[in-house]
Amino acid sequence: MRILGIDPGIAIVGYGIIDYVGNKFKTVDYGAITTDSKMKTSKRLKVIYDSLQELIQVHKPDVIAIEELFFNKNVKTALIVGHARGVCILAGENFNLNIFEYTPLQVKQGIVGYGRAEKKQVQIMVKTLLNLKSVPKPDDVADALAVAICHAHSGKFGDLFSLK
Amino acid sequence: MRILGIDPGIAIVGYGIIDYVGNKFKTVDYGAITTDSKMKTSKRLKVIYDSLQELIQVHKPDVIAIEELFFNKNVKTALIVGHARGVCILAGENFNLNIFEYTPLQVKQGIVGYGRAEKKQVQIMVKTLLNLKSVPKPDDVADALAVAICHAHSGKFGDLFSLK
Repeated sequence: MRILGIDPGIAIVGYGIIDYVGNKFKTVDYGAITTDSKMKTSKRLKVIYDSLQELIQVHKPDVIAIEELFFNKNVKTALIVGHARGVCILAGENFNLNIFEYTPLQVKQGIVGYGRAEKKQVQIMVKTLLNLKSVPKPDDVADALAVAICHAHSGKFGDLFSLK
Repeated sequence: MRILGIDPGIAIVGYGIIDYVGNKFKTVDYGAITTDSKMKTSKRLKVIYDSLQELIQVHKPDVIAIEELFFNKNVKTALIVGHARGVCILAGENFNLNIFEYTPLQVKQGIVGYGRAEKKQVQIMVKTLLNLKSVPKPDDVADALAVAICHAHSGKFGDLFSLK
């Protein structure tokens, strides 16, 4: 199963594509889609959307895992990140991919086995599980790989194995 | 100038298309794109996106005017409406349209001439200015027409008249 993990944002969208076969991981690609704050919001959304569509076309993931976002305080931030997350989800829906959402707590539990793990612990587990030389930067990329691993560990393979 | 006004939401997107020529309005089309709450969020976003793209293709507006949203309390609502608003903006950007944003306060000022006007006053002005038989329903449709009228009244025709 090929999983595209996404950590959405308006300035940086982290992505990580991994294969998970027989309890083993293989890293396919990872990186960040970045947009300049001087660009109009509409252009930034289009850059994100077009880049993600291209990634999906090239790497043909079976499924998307995306971070579910929580904001305690800043409503304005929630609204703008919502815009970015919306176009990410649309890009997946255009390819008829199943899209799974995981909270940061679920990601930590799914990777370190414990919801209150520190960011650094998660990053080290990502590096170890994917056999990378260093922790991918910026943090958004490591987070995207983390949510992809979390999906692999969740056992939600209905889209592949429940076909009748 | 043909203006597409949009009042974004996940369940209902109000739209209103008007022509504004020589200080006169002509109503082209208006209505609501609705999505069922039983649908997956990703499908709802795609319905909104596809419907808006179709409206733009059919009616060829020169510009989009969209409500800028403010939420005092509910961050979760802001996030989900942000998703819907993001795909609306993307649909406009795909056609290279200029997209103008107006706060509810600006819309009231632009239509009734006073920012603390009541919703009903705005609706009656929309009906009167566009020479409609009744106030369009649901409220989202009247709001979409209101933001389109607000843009006409704002005098921001740079996209059409500042060409050198």
